[in-house]
Amino acid sequence: MARYRIDIEYDGTKYCGWQRQNIEQENSERGSIQAAIEHALFQYCGENITLTVAGRTDAGVHAIHQVAHFDMHKIPKKGDIELTYALNAYLQKANKTIAILETTTIDENFSARFDAKKRQYLYKIILRKAPLALDKYRAWQIPYELNIKAMREAANFLYGKHDFSSFRSSQCQAKNPIRTLDSIDFSLNNNNLNILIAAPSFLHNQVRIMVGSLYNVGRNYWDPNYIKTILELKDRTQAGPNAPPHGLYLYKIFY
Amino acid sequence: MARYRIDIEYDGTKYCGWQRQNIEQENSERGSIQAAIEHALFQYCGENITLTVAGRTDAGVHAIHQVAHFDMHKIPKKGDIELTYALNAYLQKANKTIAILETTTIDENFSARFDAKKRQYLYKIILRKAPLALDKYRAWQIPYELNIKAMREAANFLYGKHDFSSFRSSQCQAKNPIRTLDSIDFSLNNNNLNILIAAPSFLHNQVRIMVGSLYNVGRNYWDPNYIKTILELKDRTQAGPNAPPHGLYLYKIFY
Repeated sequence: MARYRIDIEYDGTKYCGWQRQNIEQENSERGSIQAAIEHALFQYCGENITLTVAGRTDAGVHAIHQVAHFDMHKIPKKGDIELTYALNAYLQKANKTIAILETTTIDENFSARFDAKKRQYLYKIILRKAPLALDKYRAWQIPYELNIKAMREAANFLYGKHDFSSFRSSQCQAKNPIRTLDSIDFSLNNNNLNILIAAPSFLHNQVRIMVGSLYNVGRNYWDPNYIKTILELKDRTQAGPNAPPHGLYLYKIFY
Repeated sequence: MARYRIDIEYDGTKYCGWQRQNIEQENSERGSIQAAIEHALFQYCGENITLTVAGRTDAGVHAIHQVAHFDMHKIPKKGDIELTYALNAYLQKANKTIAILETTTIDENFSARFDAKKRQYLYKIILRKAPLALDKYRAWQIPYELNIKAMREAANFLYGKHDFSSFRSSQCQAKNPIRTLDSIDFSLNNNNLNILIAAPSFLHNQVRIMVGSLYNVGRNYWDPNYIKTILELKDRTQAGPNAPPHGLYLYKIFY
């Protein structure tokens, strides 16, 4: 038995999210990413393997870089590369938009979830009047100008350690709503607005609710200072809407 | 009756290409882009309109910027913007990955096809061992190193005016195989290789066969000089393979 780390990229458009569902049909039109990879693992080794992941993603959310670990009895004869090739072959055969970037045999105490020191998410916004064609399921199209200076100002209130109760899904199961935001960086390139957000960990939907709230500031619906008030109110209903899932990318996991 | 120019973006993955097929079912799984837009026009004005396009694209080929024109009796009350909104609304409702970027009332003698002075195509290659997930239908994944210096050298033989008989589909209907290549520019950014190719016009499959031939040079299968020989042979079977359609983007039309 050995432990493996896999680094993964996926287009989340056609999946119900990372997490395997209790009742998931193998050939479901909208299965989970976890089940797709576990099924490929089963095809490779015949073992029923459960993946542990660094960052669970919702339906429609993408990953440029996700990390998971698992334990397996079978020993790949040609080493880690054999596993990468085999999993990719099974995933491609099933026409999945999931790719294994790398496989690494790793210490048996390693946890993709608990050893992750920092998680980075990218939120892609495209500012234009026309609907998106090439990026239809890859970015949030906003047909208005946004006051990005005000958005940056508002983001300043989110930095650091706060009770993020206003910025988490009502279904969030975390016991502690305190989180520490390391950074929120804006970059505007022509009409592409990228927001890169990093923290040791996030509450459920935290990134999407933060982006939705910053959107309200960008539209000048809210004064930037109002973000501070929202934090203090500790009430989800006071924050902005959930930004759509298809603009969100799990960008990097740091160990 | 007035003439309109529309500027269009599309993801060609799910289409049989630009051109309307003789027998095309309206709700076909893999219809044409032309039929989708013509159907949206019919919904808007009730007229059976035929589009004339700057650059016909094959199945799976994308467009960042395509141009077409058409004549219509109905006068949009709110001007061109009404047409843009209406067409996008119908296309979005039909869940098409096609967007109208702009509509312009234009001189009745304008031809999207014959007035185009230059056509620019972009070919996207991603050099990596892992299959593509996010760019699965958007780029050609090549799991090998390419000798880009040799590819640039080979491309030099394609510049200018030549008989491109070796670089056109056996189904190409152009009477004259002489074309003039304005530019082939390579840009390598991390593992993304973009090839931007411009000419007043192209033969059928010319870009894909040129890229497929440059690939053979990049793999060091062929000496760069061999591209010159292929031109001289005027024989399609001597050139490289058709590069896959999903790496190709119609990039810009110049008038």
